[in-house]
Amino acid sequence: MKLLEERIRKDGKILPGDILKIDNFLNHQIDVELMDQMGEEFYRLFKDKKPNKILTIESSGIAIAAAASRCFGYIPVVFAKKTVAANMAKNAFEAKEHSYTRNIEYTVQVSREYLGPEDRVLILDDFLANGEAMNALINICKQAEAQIVGCGSVVCKTYQPGEQRIKDMGYEVEVLARVKAMSDDGQIEFE
Amino acid sequence: MKLLEERIRKDGKILPGDILKIDNFLNHQIDVELMDQMGEEFYRLFKDKKPNKILTIESSGIAIAAAASRCFGYIPVVFAKKTVAANMAKNAFEAKEHSYTRNIEYTVQVSREYLGPEDRVLILDDFLANGEAMNALINICKQAEAQIVGCGSVVCKTYQPGEQRIKDMGYEVEVLARVKAMSDDGQIEFE
Repeated sequence: MKLLEERIRKDGKILPGDILKIDNFLNHQIDVELMDQMGEEFYRLFKDKKPNKILTIESSGIAIAAAASRCFGYIPVVFAKKTVAANMAKNAFEAKEHSYTRNIEYTVQVSREYLGPEDRVLILDDFLANGEAMNALINICKQAEAQIVGCGSVVCKTYQPGEQRIKDMGYEVEVLARVKAMSDDGQIEFE
Repeated sequence: MKLLEERIRKDGKILPGDILKIDNFLNHQIDVELMDQMGEEFYRLFKDKKPNKILTIESSGIAIAAAASRCFGYIPVVFAKKTVAANMAKNAFEAKEHSYTRNIEYTVQVSREYLGPEDRVLILDDFLANGEAMNALINICKQAEAQIVGCGSVVCKTYQPGEQRIKDMGYEVEVLARVKAMSDDGQIEFE
């Protein structure tokens, strides 16, 4: 998605530890018009899969998922909750996610009320690097016996294992901006 | 907002500790069509105030703020980050919020990059009970020397002090559903 690549080139910041920060339009300040354009793009990519639910993870996935939901005729969005606390929520599916950025382990939870065998789930998230968050959401769908119809990510670092990891599990992965390389002087290369 | 009141009556759950849970259309699963309708209502209520930015707080405020942003011609949304960790982010405004629901204290943070004296801020959030979250957001706007043009909440428990507390600070408060009473047998009364 050219528009997104241009925006990342313009506003993305590369931080130590190979971190791409896109705080000024997605992860802290949100450009809702761009969200809507990304929602339309996810709709174009996945409309044939006929999802009836979008699963994402708080917080940055929410605006993306909401924009996509509208394009799919307002299918429900469920956002998984992320906690560092170990206390198991009653009546929830849960999975572990190791955050390489923060070097902590999250527990990811989705209530059993909002995911089940009747669901055709489109999983959407902001970043696909090592695939930890996406893997946790897939794990939760499996526990719910929900069908995963596709996985979409706004940004993917293609030199990290996440995308291949999800594809190797048999899922379609679509990415809006594929980062091939980032240099210390702030240059970002796309595939 | 009649539609919202009906939805709360239908799907709201009253939990011990005077907690109103509206997980199935706002706080965990999101009905994006209803978010859009609420966004339009916030636009109607605040359009004369001409905000140029919406400030909310993760996670549940995001979908509401994004829906409202679209109505205001895609003004930027900034969502404050909530952390239990005490580590001060560099270059951020921060305020404390005591959560009565969870009985913990959060640190609420907004980067100095995304809020400043040039901003006319509309603050939006999901719940107004004791006014702790709203107060933290107001505090942050003051630090940023941003002008607050109004405060909107999806739900307010009118028998708790939050709404009056914010009004006493001199701000306009608009609420979409005003809960007057909740009974143990699941009845919810609106004003």
